[in-house]
Amino acid sequence: MREALVAAAFELFLERGFEQTTIDDIVSLAGVGRRSFFRYFPAKEDVVFPDHERGLADMTEFLESGTGEEDPVKHASDAARLVLRMYAEQPSFSVQRYRLTRKVPGLRAYELSVVWRYEHTLAHYLRGRFADRPDGALRADVIAAAVVAAHNHALRTWLRSGGESDWVAEVESAMAFVTGTWSDRPAEGAADGGEPGADEVVVLVASRRAPLWRMVQGIESALGESRKV
Amino acid sequence: MREALVAAAFELFLERGFEQTTIDDIVSLAGVGRRSFFRYFPAKEDVVFPDHERGLADMTEFLESGTGEEDPVKHASDAARLVLRMYAEQPSFSVQRYRLTRKVPGLRAYELSVVWRYEHTLAHYLRGRFADRPDGALRADVIAAAVVAAHNHALRTWLRSGGESDWVAEVESAMAFVTGTWSDRPAEGAADGGEPGADEVVVLVASRRAPLWRMVQGIESALGESRKV
Repeated sequence: MREALVAAAFELFLERGFEQTTIDDIVSLAGVGRRSFFRYFPAKEDVVFPDHERGLADMTEFLESGTGEEDPVKHASDAARLVLRMYAEQPSFSVQRYRLTRKVPGLRAYELSVVWRYEHTLAHYLRGRFADRPDGALRADVIAAAVVAAHNHALRTWLRSGGESDWVAEVESAMAFVTGTWSDRPAEGAADGGEPGADEVVVLVASRRAPLWRMVQGIESALGESRKV
Repeated sequence: MREALVAAAFELFLERGFEQTTIDDIVSLAGVGRRSFFRYFPAKEDVVFPDHERGLADMTEFLESGTGEEDPVKHASDAARLVLRMYAEQPSFSVQRYRLTRKVPGLRAYELSVVWRYEHTLAHYLRGRFADRPDGALRADVIAAAVVAAHNHALRTWLRSGGESDWVAEVESAMAFVTGTWSDRPAEGAADGGEPGADEVVVLVASRRAPLWRMVQGIESALGESRKV
């Protein structure tokens, strides 16, 4: 019954658009009553994105499970990974929805609002963790957006492969780019030269014109400062 | 006439919601004919976001004006700055719209789709510039998202001040965070220790456990690699 409702809804959204399709249209095509629809889905959007409320709840719970000692960037990217796992659990449904969402503007808009809620949830966690930095809120917002963009890059790559590529490898390399940029403890094989297996890194940004001794001084100071994160 | 239409539309969106308000409702409250509406606005959305098509066109033109020699991250953040300038040109309208958008879900969704188009435009430019890097597409997507997030952070800070704070200072410090992270040539006073006035930096990410000589080796190698960008 659930599958029949999803199939009918996808057909109608593609044919008429999301806004122009009513729940009555969907149940009529699926040959079931209105009450059956609401047994499975609270609203029209939920036929297409039935798992996002759970996804958001899981992400929030995971973020809150941190002790406050974990690396915040790593923890945020692990939280985003949960969402990709949710997609990967149902490859054919996810791929079908991806194709539909690209064609139906109303669904694309709905998806953007879902993505925004994930980003907002991550930013909220990171703002808490960066509360004692003068640039904490800015840093949190930028890193949350970067985590979401890396996640979406991995997700799209996997969806475009028809759900055939290795989603774990996609998400690992995407997240390594983000943790390699900002984390104290990037994942193994991190981008930008993070040592494989290193669980803490030092990031130095210095003028290329600076003499080498000043860069070494910079490293020493970075080693001191990065302990604060 | 234009202002009367905007005022009527804002009043109705707030009262009934965006979806539930028709163009007929707006012209009737403003006391003008339907044709007058379409003289100023192509569609209902454009009453609230009348300048975004121009903003996107300006951004695209600016991005394309690059010679291909400019620093890509700096160029992308300068493009985003154009959008903030567009808001800053009309402080009271921008602040009024911000308050409305936060209250009306339909407008929030529309705004997200506008933001997504800016991000997409920036990512497209960066993908071109990073085409010869193995991680070029991922890097482009993440940096585009970071630029947009930094822009939005600055914009929100300014809007929350009622348009009273120094928007130039807000956007400078937000963009310095992004260019300080990724650019070869960050802005003056860049975050993360970029030397004031430096137009090229070296970024080193190394294990904190690594001996100092290996970090120095890393700097030398970074100096070589960063020339490729």
